[in-house]
Amino acid sequence: MPALRPVVFIGGILVLVLAATMAIPALVELWLEADHAPEYLPCVAVPAFLGCAAILASRGGPMKLGLREAYLLTTGLWVVLPLTAALPFMWTVPNLSLTDAYFEAVSGLTATGATVITGLDHLPPGVLLWRSMLQWVGGIGIVVMAIAVLPLLKVGGMQLMSRESSDTSDKILARPRELATWLLSIYLSLTLACAIAYGLAGMGGFDALNHAMTTVSTAGFSTRDASLGSFSAAAQWVSVVFMLAGAVPFLLYIQVVRGTWGFVPWSQIPPMLGVVVVGGLLLAWSAVLAGHDVMDAVRHGIFSVTSIITTTGYASYDWQSWGPFAAAMALVLMFCGGCTGSTTGGVKIFRWQILIRRFRITTQELIRPHRVVAQVYQGRPVGPEVVQGVMVLVLLVGGVTALTTVLLAATGLDLVTAFSAAASTVTNVGPALGSIAGPAGNFGPLPDTAKWILSFAMLLGRLELLTVLVMLDPDFWRR
Amino acid sequence: MPALRPVVFIGGILVLVLAATMAIPALVELWLEADHAPEYLPCVAVPAFLGCAAILASRGGPMKLGLREAYLLTTGLWVVLPLTAALPFMWTVPNLSLTDAYFEAVSGLTATGATVITGLDHLPPGVLLWRSMLQWVGGIGIVVMAIAVLPLLKVGGMQLMSRESSDTSDKILARPRELATWLLSIYLSLTLACAIAYGLAGMGGFDALNHAMTTVSTAGFSTRDASLGSFSAAAQWVSVVFMLAGAVPFLLYIQVVRGTWGFVPWSQIPPMLGVVVVGGLLLAWSAVLAGHDVMDAVRHGIFSVTSIITTTGYASYDWQSWGPFAAAMALVLMFCGGCTGSTTGGVKIFRWQILIRRFRITTQELIRPHRVVAQVYQGRPVGPEVVQGVMVLVLLVGGVTALTTVLLAATGLDLVTAFSAAASTVTNVGPALGSIAGPAGNFGPLPDTAKWILSFAMLLGRLELLTVLVMLDPDFWRR
Ligand SMILES: [K+]
Ligand SMILES: [K+]
Repeated sequence: MPALRPVVFIGGILVLVLAATMAIPALVELWLEADHAPEYLPCVAVPAFLGCAAILASRGGPMKLGLREAYLLTTGLWVVLPLTAALPFMWTVPNLSLTDAYFEAVSGLTATGATVITGLDHLPPGVLLWRSMLQWVGGIGIVVMAIAVLPLLKVGGMQLMSRESSDTSDKILARPRELATWLLSIYLSLTLACAIAYGLAGMGGFDALNHAMTTVSTAGFSTRDASLGSFSAAAQWVSVVFMLAGAVPFLLYIQVVRGTWGFVPWSQIPPMLGVVVVGGLLLAWSAVLAGHDVMDAVRHGIFSVTSIITTTGYASYDWQSWGPFAAAMALVLMFCGGCTGSTTGGVKIFRWQILIRRFRITTQELIRPHRVVAQVYQGRPVGPEVVQGVMVLVLLVGGVTALTTVLLAATGLDLVTAFSAAASTVTNVGPALGSIAGPAGNFGPLPDTAKWILSFAMLLGRLELLTVLVMLDPDFWRR
Repeated sequence: MPALRPVVFIGGILVLVLAATMAIPALVELWLEADHAPEYLPCVAVPAFLGCAAILASRGGPMKLGLREAYLLTTGLWVVLPLTAALPFMWTVPNLSLTDAYFEAVSGLTATGATVITGLDHLPPGVLLWRSMLQWVGGIGIVVMAIAVLPLLKVGGMQLMSRESSDTSDKILARPRELATWLLSIYLSLTLACAIAYGLAGMGGFDALNHAMTTVSTAGFSTRDASLGSFSAAAQWVSVVFMLAGAVPFLLYIQVVRGTWGFVPWSQIPPMLGVVVVGGLLLAWSAVLAGHDVMDAVRHGIFSVTSIITTTGYASYDWQSWGPFAAAMALVLMFCGGCTGSTTGGVKIFRWQILIRRFRITTQELIRPHRVVAQVYQGRPVGPEVVQGVMVLVLLVGGVTALTTVLLAATGLDLVTAFSAAASTVTNVGPALGSIAGPAGNFGPLPDTAKWILSFAMLLGRLELLTVLVMLDPDFWRR
C-alpha cells in the first residue's frame, strides 16, 4: 500500500494555491463589471477550508515520496484539482451542472480545450479568464511533468528523456529550483510575446491575453464560439507561430538562451514542421476542391493541421465541409501530437520516429536474420525497454480509444461522433467530428454519462495512460 | 536480388493447377444448364498457356528457395493467382469489369468474402461454385501458410508457432507430405460434415455444398444476396458451429485423431468462445432494445459475433439497425480474429493474449522496477523478439487501416464506409458498415480506385502485412 500521507499533504497545498488564484478572475470581475465578484467567495472558501484540513490532517511524519507515491500523487492531483477548478463554473455560470463544470475544468487543466459552454461571446469576463488561466497553469504543469516526472516513472519509453544521463553538461537540470525558474520565465515570455503579437494583429486586449494563454499552452479554449475564425487572417498566422512555439521541447529555449545543457530532443522539430507543411497543403487542396480561394485555403489548411498536431484544437474554419478526405486526415493527425517536453498531447513525434525506425530495422532483420542493428535516437541508445515502452503506449492509445468509442456508442452517440470524440480527448486535441461536437460545435448536447467518460479519457491521455493504468494492478496496492 | 527462377517455376505450376480446377465449374454448367460451359474454354486456355510458358522459361538450374525467395513466392502467388481466378468472372458474368473481377478473385482466394456482385440468387451455378471453390482453396492455403511458412518467416511473432522446437513428439510435422495429407483429409471431412448438416437444416444440395466450402474456410461468400439470412434458424446455428470449427487451430484435429504431436496453440480457444458468448449477448441486448424477440436476438447476436471474430463475414441480419453500440462492437471485434493456424484472418487471439499478458508485466515492472517477470505461452518462453513481432504486427494493422481509410476517403467515400471497409479488408472479415457496403450491401457501387486499394488491403492483411512490406525495403532487392 503506497503511503497516503505525503500525497494528501502536497495535494492540500496545491488545492490551496489553486483556490488563491481564483482571486484573479474575482478581481477582474470587480474591475470590469463587478456583477459576479461576490460569487467567487464560496469558490475560494470551500477548497481553502478543505485544503487546510488536508494539510493539517497529514502534516508531520515522514514525507518521502517513493515510486508508487509519485504515481498516486500525479494521478490524484489531476483528478482532485479539476474538482476545485470546477467551482467557479458551477457557481458563477448559470445552468451549468456539476457534470458540465467538472468536464470544463478537466478540459481546462489537461489543456484539452473541449467545451460544453455555448455563448462564450456573452460570458462574464471572470469566467472566460478562469478558463484560460486553467489551461495556462495546466500547460506549464504538463511541461514540468514531461521533463521532471515522466522520465523517472519510465512511462511510454520516457526514460529515453531521462536527465540522469552521463552528460557532464547536464548541471542545471540537477537543480530543480533553477530549472523551474527558467521554465516559468520562458513560458511567461512566450505568453507575453504572443499577447503582443495578437494585439498587433488586431485583437482586443482581453481577447489577446486570453488567447495568448491558451495558444502557448496548446490548449485551445477561446473567448468566442467561432474560435480563431472570429479574428483576422493575421491573428490566425500569429496563432500558427505560437502554437508551434508551444509544441517545441521547452528545454530547447533554455539551451538557446544559456548554451548547451544536456539532452534536448530537438530532432522532433523538422518532422513536425514537415507534417504541418505537407498536411497543410493536402488540406488546402481539399479546401480548393470545395471551392475556396487558394490563399484562404492555404491559410486554413496550415492553421488546421497546426492546430491538430500541436493538439491545440482551435478552429479557423469547419474543415469538415471540405469532405471526407479532410475529415479522415484530421482524425489520423490527432494521433500525431507535437514534441515531447512541450505542452502538447497525443502520441508525440519522438515515439513515431522510434516506431518508424524500428519498423525499418524489423524488415532488415527479417530479410537478413543474422544482422543486428542497434537503434539510436540523437546519439542515445534506444534499448529494447524503450522500444517496448513506446509500443505499449501507442497500443494503449489505440485500445483506450476503441474502448471509449464503444462506451460512447452505448450512450447513443453515432459512430463518427463517438470515435472522433474518443480520439480527440485521449490525445487532448479538443474538438471532435460530426454534427454535434465538430470543430464548429461543442460537447454541451452530449449525455452526462458521455461527459464523464470523456473527462476520464482526457485525464488518461494527459497522463500518458500508464501513469493511471498502473493503479488498476492489484500489486500497486499491496505492500 | 532474390532469385526469380524458382519463384516463376512454382508460380507457373500453381497457375496451371488453378486453371485445371476451372474444369469443375465448366462441368457443372454442362450438367445443370450448359449455357455458359463454352465460356470457360478461354478461361482455362489462357492461363494454361501462360503457366506452361512460365514453367518452360524457368525450368532447369538451381531450385533452392532462400528466405527472400520465400517472401517473394508467397506474395507473388497471392497477387498472380487472383489474376488467373478472375478470368471466369470477366468472361462468364455480364457487366463485370477487370477491376470488379480482380476484386472478386482476391476476395475469394484471400477468403475475405467482400463481393461486388449483386443478384447472386440469379447467377449461373458455375460462377457461384467458382467463387466458393476459390475460398475453399484459399482457406486450406491459409492453414498451410500459417503452419508451415509464416513461422519460418518469423513474421508478426509467428516464430512462437515454430515446429523446429525440441519437442521429441514432433515427428509428423517434420514430414511435410504426411502433414499435408492430414490437413487435407481433415479439411475435406469438416466440409463434408458441414454440407450434410446444412442439408439436414433444410438447405438445398447446391447451396449446402457452396456454403459448406465458404463456412469451413471462414471466408463468407454466399449464393444469396441476403447471405445466411435467406436460410432457417437451424442453418444459422449449423453455420455458427462450423465457422468456429474453421477458426480452431487445425493441428488440434490431428492431435485429437492421432494423439499428442508437438505444439498446438489450443489455449486460444477458451478466450475465443468467451468473446463469442459475451459479445454475442451484448449484441443480443442491443437487438432486444431495438425491438427484437429475445430468442431471435440471441441467435442473431451469437451468429454475428461468430461471423465477425472468425472473420467469416456472413450476415444473418443487418446488425447496423441495432444502433451505434452494435456497430461499434462489430468494428472493434473485426480486429480480434480467430486462432492462429486456422483459416481465419485478423490479428488473431494468441497475439491479444501475448499483448494483454505483456501489458500486465509492464505495469508490474513499472511498480517494482527490479522485478523481472518471464513471459510464457503454453509453456513456451515468449522472448522479446516475439513480443516485438506481435506489437509490430498490431501496430501495422492499425497503421495500414488508417492509411487505407485516408486513401479511400480521398476517393470520396464517407468516413464510416472508408474506415470500416479498410478495417474489414485488412482483417479479411468482408462486409463493411454504412449504407453502401454494410452487411446487407456490397462493394459494387464503390469507385474503381477504391476497389484496387481494397484488393491490395486484402492481400496485405492475408499475408500478415510484413510478408509484403519487407519488399518495400530497398535491401530486399540488393545482393
Ligand atoms: K488542446
Ligand atoms: K471472410
